[in-house]
Amino acid sequence: MPAGLKGRVLVTGAAGFVGRHALPSLVAAGYEVHGVTLAPGEGLPPLVQWHTVDLLTPGAGARLVETVRPTHLLHLAWTTEPGAYWTSEANLRWVKASLELLEAFGRAGGRRFVGAGSCAEYDWSVGELDEGRAADRPATLYGRAKLATWHLSAVAAELHGFTAAWGRLFFLYGPHEHPARLVPTVARALLAAQPAEVGDGRAERDFLSSEDAGAAFAALLDAPVVGVVNVASGSSVPVAEVVTRVARLIGREDLVRFGARKAPAFEPPRLATAAHRLRHEVGFTPSLDLEAGLRRAVDFWRGR
Amino acid sequence: MPAGLKGRVLVTGAAGFVGRHALPSLVAAGYEVHGVTLAPGEGLPPLVQWHTVDLLTPGAGARLVETVRPTHLLHLAWTTEPGAYWTSEANLRWVKASLELLEAFGRAGGRRFVGAGSCAEYDWSVGELDEGRAADRPATLYGRAKLATWHLSAVAAELHGFTAAWGRLFFLYGPHEHPARLVPTVARALLAAQPAEVGDGRAERDFLSSEDAGAAFAALLDAPVVGVVNVASGSSVPVAEVVTRVARLIGREDLVRFGARKAPAFEPPRLATAAHRLRHEVGFTPSLDLEAGLRRAVDFWRGR
Repeated sequence: MPAGLKGRVLVTGAAGFVGRHALPSLVAAGYEVHGVTLAPGEGLPPLVQWHTVDLLTPGAGARLVETVRPTHLLHLAWTTEPGAYWTSEANLRWVKASLELLEAFGRAGGRRFVGAGSCAEYDWSVGELDEGRAADRPATLYGRAKLATWHLSAVAAELHGFTAAWGRLFFLYGPHEHPARLVPTVARALLAAQPAEVGDGRAERDFLSSEDAGAAFAALLDAPVVGVVNVASGSSVPVAEVVTRVARLIGREDLVRFGARKAPAFEPPRLATAAHRLRHEVGFTPSLDLEAGLRRAVDFWRGR
Repeated sequence: MPAGLKGRVLVTGAAGFVGRHALPSLVAAGYEVHGVTLAPGEGLPPLVQWHTVDLLTPGAGARLVETVRPTHLLHLAWTTEPGAYWTSEANLRWVKASLELLEAFGRAGGRRFVGAGSCAEYDWSVGELDEGRAADRPATLYGRAKLATWHLSAVAAELHGFTAAWGRLFFLYGPHEHPARLVPTVARALLAAQPAEVGDGRAERDFLSSEDAGAAFAALLDAPVVGVVNVASGSSVPVAEVVTRVARLIGREDLVRFGARKAPAFEPPRLATAAHRLRHEVGFTPSLDLEAGLRRAVDFWRGR
């Protein structure tokens, strides 16, 4: 590793929706950055040494870690196919792949691990999702798999002597979002002058741009913070507000059909999310408010 | 499987402190019982088909499940060496061995899984350990490994279509207990007419005889209950009461030295444990009260 660098970080999911936005911040913070991707080719962010590896192949992650010998591991890869990821058997394969990475990282003398968790690990019935107070009580297969992986990360960290933090993601939007998710669905319909059918939009959620989420993970990796940290904006808004802002940016509020879709029955009306740890312990503040972030997302879809 | 049997159960840790007491109840309930042990030889309970397998050898558990093809899996094996088990690297190996068993069990068409969890999975700062209300917040490596294994059990159950329950053990005593634990330490010292040095004994804990714990696991396996179930008596007593009862049974209260040992700083003064689910949903009531259970424990040590 060249002198003057803080460390060598291996980023899984580095070409993904969140991962790609972590890369510039990691380079700027003084890390040699290695990214893992399943698909080589055009469109990969620069500044990174890319490794084409399928981490779900048993042994592949361990071999990669032994080759790169990272001092830092930012583990963002997981199955993310909209809808399917809640119950997919890939969740269990990702638990095993994560454990393989963690153990190889420990054996290779790694110093710091940060992984991507989810608000789905919390007990949503309480509605106040604060790392220090809210109970973990995942209601879904995906949430259980993520929570198990966090505890296994902490176990591996204690056994191997590295530090571990777990950034729990909430509701994201931004460039490169999967087209089946909320903001792209609405934006693409309206940009094509088609009606956008949505739920009643009354549920309140914490929305963060994927650009800020990526930068937040880079900051968390570079901070001496351990344990669970919400990667969130800290303020919840009605889903209808997100939809209406997108529609205004496109100038087609007339085409939004609120109430045309039913919301899933199990979803609570309001999730209030604390972001104190991210703001005050990690020292990270989002650079994009909802309006600015949605403008960038809409601009991304406008060109396609 | 012979006609008239309810199923074929594979019991890990079957020769252990709790497991050996599950076996007669399982046979009585109508199961064909297969036990896994590390050490063949004398002293193994009868009525069981024994398999000598080291489940920590990768692949060994899966091969055993493929051979036995159990309909039920009662997974009690884990690292239990007093003191060491809280931080041992064996915890992570048991997580992996458990996951291997669970997946092989699912592939073999298994119908019901019950595993042994621990009160160490709960947030002890609250002090009221009720399955429905208490938060999971393990403070130790062991507790994290157990909690991760529970969530992975539930994930495997959902993916493979079997039911899963998780019996959380609290404070146990009984015949065959490890000699370094509380009751044997006190009983053996007093039986040898030596002083028994203990802490102040003011902490209140839920004590259950290992005989009842084993029978409770057999009942849980045979019940249609899913999720976390406390395997406990439901009433907490000061540790001093346990020590004093042991001393009275031996007739050497004069040799107990309360306060001669310091209690670990992190231990809360009182843990109140709910046993409603075990009693009312599983339908299990302990057969031994503290006095009767301790008498059997003392009798066990008297003969040695």
